[in-house]
Amino acid sequence: MKINHHFDEMVPNYLFADVARKTNEFAAAHPDMTIIRLGIGDVTLPLAPVVVDALKQGSEDLRHQNTFRGYPDYEGYEFLRNAIAQYYQGFGVTVHPDEVFVSDGAKSDCGNVGDIFSQDNTVLIPDPVYPVYVDANIMAGRKILYAAAGRDNHFLAMPDPDVRADIIYLCSPNNPTGAAYSAEQLQEWVNYALENDAIILYDAAYEAFIRDDLPRSIYSIDGARRCAIELCSLSKTAGFTGTRCGYTVIPRELKREGQSLHALWYRRQATKFNGVSWPVQCAAAAVFTPEGQRQCRENLDYYHRNAEMIASALDELGIYYTGGKNSPYIWMECPDHMGSWEFFDYLLHNAAVVGTPGEGFGEQGKGYFRLTSFNSHEKTAEAVDRMKRLLS
Amino acid sequence: MKINHHFDEMVPNYLFADVARKTNEFAAAHPDMTIIRLGIGDVTLPLAPVVVDALKQGSEDLRHQNTFRGYPDYEGYEFLRNAIAQYYQGFGVTVHPDEVFVSDGAKSDCGNVGDIFSQDNTVLIPDPVYPVYVDANIMAGRKILYAAAGRDNHFLAMPDPDVRADIIYLCSPNNPTGAAYSAEQLQEWVNYALENDAIILYDAAYEAFIRDDLPRSIYSIDGARRCAIELCSLSKTAGFTGTRCGYTVIPRELKREGQSLHALWYRRQATKFNGVSWPVQCAAAAVFTPEGQRQCRENLDYYHRNAEMIASALDELGIYYTGGKNSPYIWMECPDHMGSWEFFDYLLHNAAVVGTPGEGFGEQGKGYFRLTSFNSHEKTAEAVDRMKRLLS
Repeated sequence: MKINHHFDEMVPNYLFADVARKTNEFAAAHPDMTIIRLGIGDVTLPLAPVVVDALKQGSEDLRHQNTFRGYPDYEGYEFLRNAIAQYYQGFGVTVHPDEVFVSDGAKSDCGNVGDIFSQDNTVLIPDPVYPVYVDANIMAGRKILYAAAGRDNHFLAMPDPDVRADIIYLCSPNNPTGAAYSAEQLQEWVNYALENDAIILYDAAYEAFIRDDLPRSIYSIDGARRCAIELCSLSKTAGFTGTRCGYTVIPRELKREGQSLHALWYRRQATKFNGVSWPVQCAAAAVFTPEGQRQCRENLDYYHRNAEMIASALDELGIYYTGGKNSPYIWMECPDHMGSWEFFDYLLHNAAVVGTPGEGFGEQGKGYFRLTSFNSHEKTAEAVDRMKRLLS
Repeated sequence: MKINHHFDEMVPNYLFADVARKTNEFAAAHPDMTIIRLGIGDVTLPLAPVVVDALKQGSEDLRHQNTFRGYPDYEGYEFLRNAIAQYYQGFGVTVHPDEVFVSDGAKSDCGNVGDIFSQDNTVLIPDPVYPVYVDANIMAGRKILYAAAGRDNHFLAMPDPDVRADIIYLCSPNNPTGAAYSAEQLQEWVNYALENDAIILYDAAYEAFIRDDLPRSIYSIDGARRCAIELCSLSKTAGFTGTRCGYTVIPRELKREGQSLHALWYRRQATKFNGVSWPVQCAAAAVFTPEGQRQCRENLDYYHRNAEMIASALDELGIYYTGGKNSPYIWMECPDHMGSWEFFDYLLHNAAVVGTPGEGFGEQGKGYFRLTSFNSHEKTAEAVDRMKRLLS
């Protein structure tokens, strides 16, 4: 029996473990200090009340013979796919309910979608980025190229006509940089994909944070339906990190080598997935009701005010950053040319504030640092004060 | 961009679609007849009350700041892994909580576990069997061999020392045949795996139906911890087909080529999975409480009485069958040397009873037919009467 030796090529990721260890060591040595965590990558506000009501009603349904539900459809219940299609319509994008696949989260889909592609494809991944894209493709034995993002392109990597890629991961608004593509920039990527017969895997997990006039879906771009799969999630939109529901859109006309990618993904899911639970699909549908949208928006606004606090402090300090407006993430340049980990230690030891060293997200993250808006207003305000005192 | 052309090798599976079409056609032509479905592969009784209570309490937890839960552990919460380990202890098998991985179902795991193995392995799959093993491995491009089951081995395929396999799928009690291995038979498979450096993927999804003194886990067999991964599910045990929770056990000492399969699977899940929702894990833990076990057992007993009705009718009719005692499935030889589909039509047209043609589960299923115990007592009794009248 031979194991999959591509696992040998995966670099162990100790980023969050190292952050936790250093934080714990500091806490033990300074029991009097109140540490504030601006490195949180998970939501902290509870679920919207209408969502909990739907989750409980869906649970209650399973108690009674006449409302009990067994195996769900592989692609999700129609009522939820309809609700998602209507949600897209709300920002002017037409997606047919039959093109939506409900899943247990965008992370599962953005790894598993590789099953429908040959191993023999070249994958292009922006740097810095969510580490899952890289690891899932190393595991599958694919060749990976990186599209460097940096201060010159405001951390929005753009296509290089000299690079030939088959599969392109884009994440906008980006994790970790918070930078979001404009329609013109996405059009360049779509044009590149169409010219190169490539597929864009568009991770829209943070689309609900967009406030500026920027695309919330790749399908608002001409030609995208012929070259893009969109992955989205309720994790950040509606606080579903512990509830688990996401969705993937594959347009019916999206084909390669004469085959429908929609049909391939359906076959993949029918073979290796058994759908999302009834109560969770009920809860997800509640997110897309007018009251669900209003309640979820309150939570997004809460995080957004935190992001604004951090961003305006960095503006005052004259520190370069991306994100903070259309994203829960703020990606700042470390002051005085400090390295990521050097600044991590400096901020922890001098302000008792914890963030995430940028180099954990890729080579281009060196010298950068990620702050997040998922703490409370009070803690965020206090952290911002401490940072201003330390860095001004 | 190249698609995964192994999908071209997958045979479209129209089994249940064809059954539904023929049944609907018959119903339309005979609106006066009451059709009874003994082909149901899904549970029909609602969830146990304590399980619903836990599901609702877990949902309510997500409404409040102080009990809210975000991202779960990739491997499942410790309280649930402890409960599963104790459940194993209840039938005399020692599994450490750290060896348990909670998932959204055994189907996901039995497909996804392939990620940790090289494509360059030969897979041995009993025939007839649950079609997912075959399809997941065709998709991955692995060479597949079949271990024929039939009347000569009572539909329990045994190892052939002349066949060299690297990965072996076993399902006991089997879907679709209901046949369950004895300890001696499983010992032969474990010995074969150890001698051949192979891995057994042991699907124990129906273990809770076992009544005879037969192994409920591969780990009750000497040496299994050095060659077997066990996959299990709450779908049939506790009616979780629409709730979605399963678990996979990988012993710490299970290594190949010097690497821990537990570590590889953890890395796979950390990369391509984000855990099971808090309410569902709360519900799953309730299954393993004494009251949960009692309530789930009532449902299993209900299905079991149906299986007994079917089995005793076949005994009376002198028809050869497997299953029905340690399984919700009864696998019968079609009378008068009829083919699977021929008998399907005969039973539908002459008794208005629907079952599943055995050839849908593999070449060796030709001439056999699957009946299930998931209908009501009343309907099952009526179907049995009709079959007795028709076939005696």
